[in-house]
Amino acid sequence: MPIKGGQLKSIWYDAEACEVCVVDQTRLPHEFAIHRLRTLEDACEAITSMRVRGAPLIGVTAVFGVYLALRENPDSLEIAIKRLRETRPTAVNLHWALGRAARELSEQGHADAAGMSLAFALALAEEDAACCEALGGHGGELLRRLWREHCGQDRPLQVLTHCNAGALAAVDWGTALAAVYKAANAGVPLHVWVNETRPRNQGGALTCWELRQAGIDHSLIVDGAAGHVMASGLVDVCITGSDRVSAAGDVCNKIGTYQVALAARDNNLPFYAALPVSTIDFDWPSADEAIPIEERAAEEISLTSGIEAGGRETRVRQYPEETVVRNFAFDVTPARLVSGIITEHGVFDANRNSLAALANN
Amino acid sequence: MPIKGGQLKSIWYDAEACEVCVVDQTRLPHEFAIHRLRTLEDACEAITSMRVRGAPLIGVTAVFGVYLALRENPDSLEIAIKRLRETRPTAVNLHWALGRAARELSEQGHADAAGMSLAFALALAEEDAACCEALGGHGGELLRRLWREHCGQDRPLQVLTHCNAGALAAVDWGTALAAVYKAANAGVPLHVWVNETRPRNQGGALTCWELRQAGIDHSLIVDGAAGHVMASGLVDVCITGSDRVSAAGDVCNKIGTYQVALAARDNNLPFYAALPVSTIDFDWPSADEAIPIEERAAEEISLTSGIEAGGRETRVRQYPEETVVRNFAFDVTPARLVSGIITEHGVFDANRNSLAALANN
Repeated sequence: MPIKGGQLKSIWYDAEACEVCVVDQTRLPHEFAIHRLRTLEDACEAITSMRVRGAPLIGVTAVFGVYLALRENPDSLEIAIKRLRETRPTAVNLHWALGRAARELSEQGHADAAGMSLAFALALAEEDAACCEALGGHGGELLRRLWREHCGQDRPLQVLTHCNAGALAAVDWGTALAAVYKAANAGVPLHVWVNETRPRNQGGALTCWELRQAGIDHSLIVDGAAGHVMASGLVDVCITGSDRVSAAGDVCNKIGTYQVALAARDNNLPFYAALPVSTIDFDWPSADEAIPIEERAAEEISLTSGIEAGGRETRVRQYPEETVVRNFAFDVTPARLVSGIITEHGVFDANRNSLAALANN
Repeated sequence: MPIKGGQLKSIWYDAEACEVCVVDQTRLPHEFAIHRLRTLEDACEAITSMRVRGAPLIGVTAVFGVYLALRENPDSLEIAIKRLRETRPTAVNLHWALGRAARELSEQGHADAAGMSLAFALALAEEDAACCEALGGHGGELLRRLWREHCGQDRPLQVLTHCNAGALAAVDWGTALAAVYKAANAGVPLHVWVNETRPRNQGGALTCWELRQAGIDHSLIVDGAAGHVMASGLVDVCITGSDRVSAAGDVCNKIGTYQVALAARDNNLPFYAALPVSTIDFDWPSADEAIPIEERAAEEISLTSGIEAGGRETRVRQYPEETVVRNFAFDVTPARLVSGIITEHGVFDANRNSLAALANN
C-alpha cells in the first residue's frame, strides 16, 4: 500500500533485528506506528488486542507467531498452534493458516524447525499478497464493467463498503478495497461510501485513512446511513470482505454487514463479498448451522479514544459503567442476499454448486 | 418520568422565576442538568443544539419560544414563528405546533399577547403529555398481546428500539417507550435492545438512562447489530418513534430506522412506529415525494464527548479533520415495511385509507 510516498505492507520480517513488524492498527488514524513482535505472546497479544485484524492478516500473523515460538523452543509447535488458535474464534483464515503450518512443519525433523517455519511464514505472506492482488484484479474488472454499464463517462462509480477490507486487513492490497484499487488503477473514477463500523470504527479510522493514502475519493457515514444513501440513489454496488464463508455462500463478516446486504437487496443493488479462497470454510455447510460469533468486551462500545483540542490523546467513557452492553463482533449474511463471491480464481455465484469448484484449491 | 425517586417532565414553566426549564439532553448520561430558557434565542439555541430533541418536545419548546418572544415584544409573533421554523427542517411537529400557535394567537388582540401565548404553551404541553400517555396505552396493549401470544409466562417480551422515543423526546411518557412503560406497568416482563444510534448516541446516552430510571431491563448494542440480534431469535417486536409520517404511512425517523425495519421484515418480525397524530403530515403524500432530510455538522461524527478515567469531562476527535463526512440525520422507512402506526387514537395500518380517518383530528 502507498504510505507517505513509499510502498509498505501490513506485516513483514525485519531480518536485521530478527523481529516481525506490523502496522499497529490500534494507533491509526492518529499515528502511523510500527509494532514489533519478538515472542509467541507478542503475536497472540497483537491478534487479541486487534493491533492486527482482518481475516487474511490474522492468518499470516499467526504463522509468524509459530516461528517466534519455535525459535525459542523448537519443540513447541503443538502448544504454539493451540495458543494461537484461541486468540480469535470467528475468522477461519486463522485456523486455515495454522492447519497448513501444522502439516508443513510437523512433517519436518527438528533440525531447523525455526528456519523452516520462518520460510513458511514468508512464503505464506507472499502468497497472501499475490492472492489479494489476483482477487483485486477480478473485482476491479467487475467494477469497471459496472461503471461502463451504469455510469458511462458521466460520473464516478459509487461503491459502499463496511469495516476495513483493505491492505491493512491483509499483507497487501486487501480484499474489497483491492477491487477498488485495481479499478482506480485501470482509470475507473470512483467514490467510496465508508461505513464507520461501530464499535471499533474500522471504517472511519482505517478505511478512510487507507483511501486517503491512495488518493481515492470517499465519504464517511454512520452505519445507520447506508440504507438511506442507497435509497437516495447514491450507490451502485456494495462490496465487503469476509471472515468466513460457508460452503453454501453465506458470508460471515463484521457486525452490520447483514444490514448492508438487506439494504442493497431492497434497492436492487448488487452486494459482493471479496475474499481469498482460504476464507471459505467447506466444513461449515450453511448459515442454518451456527458458528461461534465472538462477543467482545463492553468497553469497546462504552469507551472511545481520540485527540483532545490541545493534541493530547486520551480515552473517554461515553456510557456509564452500569450500562449493560452486548458486543457481538460478527454477523452472517445469508447467501440469498449475496450477488457473488470475488476470489483469486474469479467471481463465483454464492451457492454450493458454484463454490464447490473451489473446494480443492 | 421517574427521576431520582420523583416525577419529572422534560419541559416545564417555573412560574416563580418566570423561566422555561428543560432537561439538558446534551449533558446526559453524565449529568442530569436543568437548562433555563429566558429569550426566543435561548429557545432556538436549545432546539438547534439538541439540548431538547424528539419531535413532540421540539414542538412544545418552540411554542414556549413564542411566549418568550412575545413577552419581550408583543408584536413579534410573525418574526418569532419564522425564526423558530428554521431551527430544524425535518420534524413536522415543529411546524404543526407553530401553525397552531399562529392561528390561536393572531386571532387575539394584543392586550395580553404574552399571557395568551403562555397559556397556549402550557395547554399544549398538557395535551402532549396526555396524548403520549394515550398512545402508550394502545401500544402497551399491543405489547401485552404479543407477549401473551409469543412468550406466555416463560420469558420476557423482547423489544428492539432505535434512538430515543421516550419521555425525554416528549413532555412526558414518550412514544415508543410509552408503550414499553405502559406494558411494564401492566405487569408484562420486558427486555429492551437499545440501538446506540450514531452519531449522537441517543440510544446509548438517553434511552439507556431513561430505562435505568424506570427499572426496565435493557441491553445496549451498536446499530449494526440489530439485524444479528433479530436473526438470532432474540427480538419479538421493533418499535420506534417518528419525526414525520406521510399520508401513506411512510415513516421518517432518525437515521438507521430504515435498516431496522428491513431486518425486522427479513426475520418476519413486526415493526411499529409510535407517534402522536400531529406527527402525520397529510401534506406529504408518500415517500415518492422527497422531504427535506437534515444534514448536520461533520463534528457530530468526528468528535465524541465523555469522561476521562480521572472524572474530567472532555471532547476527543476520533477522525482527522481532513476526513470528508456526510451526516444525514433522518431516513424514510417505506410504508410497506411498517406493521402499524400507534397513535393516541389506536393502532392504524400504514396506508392511506387507514390513516385518512385521522386527517381531521
